[in-house]
Amino acid sequence: MATDSFLPPSGTRDFLAAESDVRERAFAAVREVFGRFGFQPLQTPAFERLEVLTGKYGDEGDKLVFKILRRGEHEATGEADLALRYDHTVPLARVVAAYGSQLPTPYKRYALAPVWRADRPGKGRFREFVQCDLDVVGTTSPLADAEVVSALYESLDALGVPEFRFLVNSRKALAGLLEVYGVPGDAGGGVLITLDKLDKLAPAAVVQELVDGRGLPEATAKGLVDDLTAPDATERIRKELEGSATGQEGLAEVDRLLALVAGIIPPERIAFAPNLVRGLDYYTGVIYEVTAPGMPGSIASGGRYDGLIGRMSGSDVPACGGSLGIERILPLLPSAGEQPAPALDVAVTVLGDALADEAFRMAAAIRRAGLRTGVYMGTSGKLARQLKWAADQGARFCLIYGEREREAGEVIVRNMASGEQTTHPVDQVAEHFV
Amino acid sequence: MATDSFLPPSGTRDFLAAESDVRERAFAAVREVFGRFGFQPLQTPAFERLEVLTGKYGDEGDKLVFKILRRGEHEATGEADLALRYDHTVPLARVVAAYGSQLPTPYKRYALAPVWRADRPGKGRFREFVQCDLDVVGTTSPLADAEVVSALYESLDALGVPEFRFLVNSRKALAGLLEVYGVPGDAGGGVLITLDKLDKLAPAAVVQELVDGRGLPEATAKGLVDDLTAPDATERIRKELEGSATGQEGLAEVDRLLALVAGIIPPERIAFAPNLVRGLDYYTGVIYEVTAPGMPGSIASGGRYDGLIGRMSGSDVPACGGSLGIERILPLLPSAGEQPAPALDVAVTVLGDALADEAFRMAAAIRRAGLRTGVYMGTSGKLARQLKWAADQGARFCLIYGEREREAGEVIVRNMASGEQTTHPVDQVAEHFV
Repeated sequence: MATDSFLPPSGTRDFLAAESDVRERAFAAVREVFGRFGFQPLQTPAFERLEVLTGKYGDEGDKLVFKILRRGEHEATGEADLALRYDHTVPLARVVAAYGSQLPTPYKRYALAPVWRADRPGKGRFREFVQCDLDVVGTTSPLADAEVVSALYESLDALGVPEFRFLVNSRKALAGLLEVYGVPGDAGGGVLITLDKLDKLAPAAVVQELVDGRGLPEATAKGLVDDLTAPDATERIRKELEGSATGQEGLAEVDRLLALVAGIIPPERIAFAPNLVRGLDYYTGVIYEVTAPGMPGSIASGGRYDGLIGRMSGSDVPACGGSLGIERILPLLPSAGEQPAPALDVAVTVLGDALADEAFRMAAAIRRAGLRTGVYMGTSGKLARQLKWAADQGARFCLIYGEREREAGEVIVRNMASGEQTTHPVDQVAEHFV
Repeated sequence: MATDSFLPPSGTRDFLAAESDVRERAFAAVREVFGRFGFQPLQTPAFERLEVLTGKYGDEGDKLVFKILRRGEHEATGEADLALRYDHTVPLARVVAAYGSQLPTPYKRYALAPVWRADRPGKGRFREFVQCDLDVVGTTSPLADAEVVSALYESLDALGVPEFRFLVNSRKALAGLLEVYGVPGDAGGGVLITLDKLDKLAPAAVVQELVDGRGLPEATAKGLVDDLTAPDATERIRKELEGSATGQEGLAEVDRLLALVAGIIPPERIAFAPNLVRGLDYYTGVIYEVTAPGMPGSIASGGRYDGLIGRMSGSDVPACGGSLGIERILPLLPSAGEQPAPALDVAVTVLGDALADEAFRMAAAIRRAGLRTGVYMGTSGKLARQLKWAADQGARFCLIYGEREREAGEVIVRNMASGEQTTHPVDQVAEHFV
């Protein structure tokens, strides 16, 4: 095999010690916040039965599912019976269907684990990536939406994301707006998809698409786009929505959420954004996204999606939830460039085979005192070489134990930063580090 | 779909909060120990390119690999191009081949993550299970073997496994024994596989298989089995091995390991076991297994395998390592039946919509003080019902905040265990919990 064939598969990554540390620290911080909000962990298998996943992600999504070949005598059929987890929402729906009454009500769970998508790999786009979801299942209470939003906020804060902003809207406010503009119900979904492009396309291009692609009269298209892109869009839309009961309901949802998180999220970090659409069509109430300077797209998002979870079991299960774009956030963090934790606190030299046993036992004693400790395993008997090894390991201290020290029953502790050396009885060296 | 189709795929498990907590606590304890020995985490992708995995696990193993169907236009071919990780050793070999010089020397890494095998699911046997490996790559030093054995010992101790014992042997001691008995070199592998059955089959059955299946003369077969099953097997074998240089070398390896870990592992917990074979054929030096009463098979194992890691890159890379059978250990732990951590420390009642905002803000303040806090999201306005919810969540405290309390600017903190209630100003309630 060529050297390239030792790299991980396209779109996946190996995480060596330093990256692994940065990631695990970030994950731990997020878990701690979610725990404080009373969200519980849920771990589901990496793969699901194929029929659990198919038909859940639309035609485009279905193509991105990694399917697992049947095994044994069935392998030759070329058929799949399992597929890798594509997100955490479908497994959540399955778990709610399977364990319903055993779960607390409401069921507040988080999932922080990889998902797999056969997307075209690209800059910052992976085929294996960690998705971080938290959801509240089984309640229509606006407190649930407010808890998810607050937990996302506290997570971003705990991670140290320097600048970010929540944009809040409601699917009902959008529906009300379309109603006010007389957009026919069946055209609504397509119109929203086009309006969602306002953050990428020029207003004129969006108007064009609304007319040509969605069949809106030009005046309607222009009116909608003008309203949503005006400097005073918020006020305009609030006024427009006076003409729609659904729109009024949507506005009330947004205002209720903003009121609940006031005093938790500073006012400059959250606002009503009447042009926020969110691509996915399953949202039914409040929706939100978090944007951060220097990041295209969003670093967190979520909303209420009352129909989705119950669809699998054919029951009526209200739910809301959010997702933290942890893979996109990690590179933004101040800690991302930090030096990783050193491999060792204490490095122990082995200056001759006859000294190895005692060196090894000293290392064991220091480990039991809780310090990261390693013994030299190379072939050089030279102190200078072993001190270099100690430095390479990031060790703060190095134990020097040669023939002379053995005769005296002592060991030298070298402070690697200052070069200062102190001498200790062999059987008391661990206490030095307690 | 029937209810059964909401269960996870055959051989896999959903981990709800309680199980997830038990498992993560155990994993954290193991990681802490490995870290103290200077082992670094390595995380590789869930899948590898198919050609990286094929031919590595023998015919039987290859059949158990979960293969991933090619995607897009290639899906119809029914061919696979990727496969789920079957163990952590092949990914380690790939990583060593890919990043060789960037890795520390020796490279001490651990992997604690799921692997997937299409094994027949059964009692305590899963298709998705966590494998926990630690390896030292790039040194022939016996200190490396001793570190792996010590780290396994300290992990079992940290996990609280009540009783266990290390059995130690060397592949060279076994080779020496076969040499002494005049077993031809090419028959050696098969003879060892049969001898490995001594812990399951009666001695006579093993003798039979050695004669019929492996073609040994009856006297040789009987001599070998008698030696290995005698009450004084250890002494007998030590004596036999005086006739073989390889055997002597093997004994020296065993004795060196025992000497290095003396004082770390109590003598009653580790012993030379001349009849220990270990199934896998890649071991080249010291081998060991850990047995525990009440558990068939072993709960940890390992050894030196100098040829394996370098095979992928065609270079010469000495290595040794061990594996902790964490999935088999978890059910043995005293904590396995323990109550999970409660979902909440503090439960906050919401006794009317008009009181929700302030209740929510009190919850936020208490969370910031670090306590797990949740607000009531159900539909009942009744205190008794909400206190039941608080109890169900395992909350130690419940905040009671009704109209009367609001008028007084106060909130009641109820100790859920004692029923004792104290009253606090609303804006100081968080301090009560600091």
